[in-house]
Parts: sequence; structure tokens; C-alpha cells
Amino acid sequence: MVFQTQLRFSTTGRGTYNISQQIAEAITQSGIKTGIAHIFLQHTSASLVLCENADPSVRSDLEAFMARLVPDGDPIFKHQDEGPDDMPAHIRTILSGDSLSIPVRKGKSDLGLWQGIFLWEHRVHPYKRTISLTILGE
Amino acid sequence: MVFQTQLRFSTTGRGTYNISQQIAEAITQSGIKTGIAHIFLQHTSASLVLCENADPSVRSDLEAFMARLVPDGDPIFKHQDEGPDDMPAHIRTILSGDSLSIPVRKGKSDLGLWQGIFLWEHRVHPYKRTISLTILGE
Amino acid sequence: MVFQTQLRFSTTGRGTYNISQQIAEAITQSGIKTGIAHIFLQHTSASLVLCENADPSVRSDLEAFMARLVPDGDPIFKHQDEGPDDMPAHIRTILSGDSLSIPVRKGKSDLGLWQGIFLWEHRVHPYKRTISLTILGE
Repeated sequence: MVFQTQLRFSTTGRGTYNISQQIAEAITQSGIKTGIAHIFLQHTSASLVLCENADPSVRSDLEAFMARLVPDGDPIFKHQDEGPDDMPAHIRTILSGDSLSIPVRKGKSDLGLWQGIFLWEHRVHPYKRTISLTILGE
Repeated sequence: MVFQTQLRFSTTGRGTYNISQQIAEAITQSGIKTGIAHIFLQHTSASLVLCENADPSVRSDLEAFMARLVPDGDPIFKHQDEGPDDMPAHIRTILSGDSLSIPVRKGKSDLGLWQGIFLWEHRVHPYKRTISLTILGE
Repeated sequence: MVFQTQLRFSTTGRGTYNISQQIAEAITQSGIKTGIAHIFLQHTSASLVLCENADPSVRSDLEAFMARLVPDGDPIFKHQDEGPDDMPAHIRTILSGDSLSIPVRKGKSDLGLWQGIFLWEHRVHPYKRTISLTILGE
């Protein structure tokens, strides 16, 4: 059994967005009880991560770390077509990943207690982002 | 055909633990001959990686590199509720990933010769870790 | 429905190789219309990434960034059996990932407009690389 849909999100610029609820609703809609939900972001400048979902300072610390690791406007980058956050957004995406697979168990996502699913926008300005969601199972 | 189970591990603190054997046994138990095994760690401070499984110095070098990249007690981090290794553990997990998908072929994991499956504990103290394992195929 | 095959590539040394076309052909060959394609590299010193596929300077900037982040011959590394690029290749692989899952929709890979699938060779010298490809769906 296969269920497939698209989800659309509007970001307000760089930062993390909790999308666990939208994924949970799509899993319920699929009717699949046991299997895998594959969440795929169709972009190269935003990513999908599982992150601690209780203390917001975890995500601001994560952002601070990444800003230091891959600095905007770093002179090492030649590709700056869309501004100083363009190439860093591509690298942040490759380091953190643009796809997640989540187990589906008893009709729900089988996440750990502290795990939330986050869309991580790496561009400074707002963007529209699309997820291709596929659920396989029984 | 879907097979799903949980695996539990007790770590003795920060470091890599070869879990290839436990995954191999679960694949055999599933009876699935061709498909995908999805190994999902239900935590945000430990990860799952494929790593060279012959020379242990590969994994100690990996640990040394990560300790330098994401230093414990870095003053950039505000989230230190559970100690100086708390926030670094979350970042290490996001950089290295908490889920792996492995091909199943002829009833076995179709790994390369040098690939081993490792649970990577990022917290300094011992923890109990749970994997949600789903195998899809025929 | 499950389709499984192996793909082989010869690299000419460190750099990114666009393999989107070979993956597209395998998806067509599978006859699967809706599902997931799981692309798994059987190595610990090369990786698979989705990257912006229009401007080649994105990939040269990515290479420059990674060369700075994980320098060849870094004295922190004890494992140098196969030369100064040996251990950096293992770390680059763990940071960027050796497996990708791609949605299959209407018989094609459901990538975003700017996403290409790249094999990223991390060793300086040429290597032969093998992908285990599994497609699940209907």
C-alpha cells in the first residue's frame, strides 16, 4: 500500500519550523498502520531535521552553531548569485539533510518522546517550500 | 510485507557501538528477502552511522574530529540543562543523522565490505537507547 | 512490488558526479509508478548528495568548504594507512551521507527543479564505486 501527497509551507526566513502536526495528519489520512513515512523536501537551500522539541534554546543554539560553521558572505564562496546566504544555504542543507524517513507504528509516527520534525529554512528571506510525502506499508 | 520490531541498547557513554549483528539477526527474523531495512533511533543525542569497520582508529579519529568541531561547554551554547555535553550531543546527532536505510538482498543486509552499522552515543554518561526497526519488501 | 539492481561508476578522483540520469533510467526500468527509490553507496569514503544542479560553482564551493572543514593530512588523525586523504574521506562521508531516498511519482523521480543526484568521491585517486538501488512501490 502506497500513499503519496504534497505539503506546502511558507517560511518567514531563516529558522526552524515544527511540522510534526502536518506529518501526523498525513499519516492518519493515509490509513497506513505499519510502515515508513518518507518526507522529502524539493529544495537545495532548506532541510529537514529531527530535533529536541521541548526547549526552544536548543534550536537557537543550533542556529548559532551553524552560522559560525558556515558563515554568510564567507570569501571562500564564489557562488553568491542570490546574496551572501545563498551558498551557505546549500552547504547547510547538505550537512543537515533534505529527507527524513520516520517509522509508522499503530497508525502514528513512532518518534521518541523528545523528537520533533522540523523544516529548517536556511535562506534569510521568506520562501515557499514543498514536501513530497510518501508512506509505504500496510 | 512489513516487519517491525524494537531493539534496545545500553551504552557505557560517548563512543561508537557496532550493532551490525543485531540488525542482521532482525533481518533474518523478518523473512524478507528483497527490500529496505529502516533503522530509526528514537533520540536526539545519539546517532546512527555507517563507518569503516576494520581499523578502530577510524572511529577514535572520528570522535576526535567531532570533539573539536562541536566542543563540549562551548560558550556559544545557552542550553546546558544536562551539562556541557548536552547541546553538543544534539548538534552531533543532526550532523551525523539518527536514521539509516539499508538494502536487503538475498535475505541479508547488502552492505559494502568495509561498512559497519554503528550506534554513536554522544552523551558522556551511559544511556539506554531504543531503535524502531522497520523492514519493507518481499 | 520491489525492484533491485546494482549500478557501477568509475570516478576520476575527488569531486562530484551527476548520476541523476542513471537513477532516472533505473526507475523507468523498474516499472514502478508510485513509491520510493533508495540509493545506497557501498563505501565509506564516498557519499551521495542532492545538490543544486545548475551552476557548477556551487559544487566547487562545496568542495572548497569541505577541504577547509576536514583538511587532508590533519595531524589530529592517526589513521593514515592509505594517505592523507584517507581519514578525511571517512569523515566527509559521515557528514554528507552515503544513502538517499527519493520519491517516485508518475514513474519518475519527484525531485525539485534545482535538485540533482550526485556521487561525491572523497578520495584523491580514481575509484570504482557500487550503488545498491532498491525501488519499492506500485
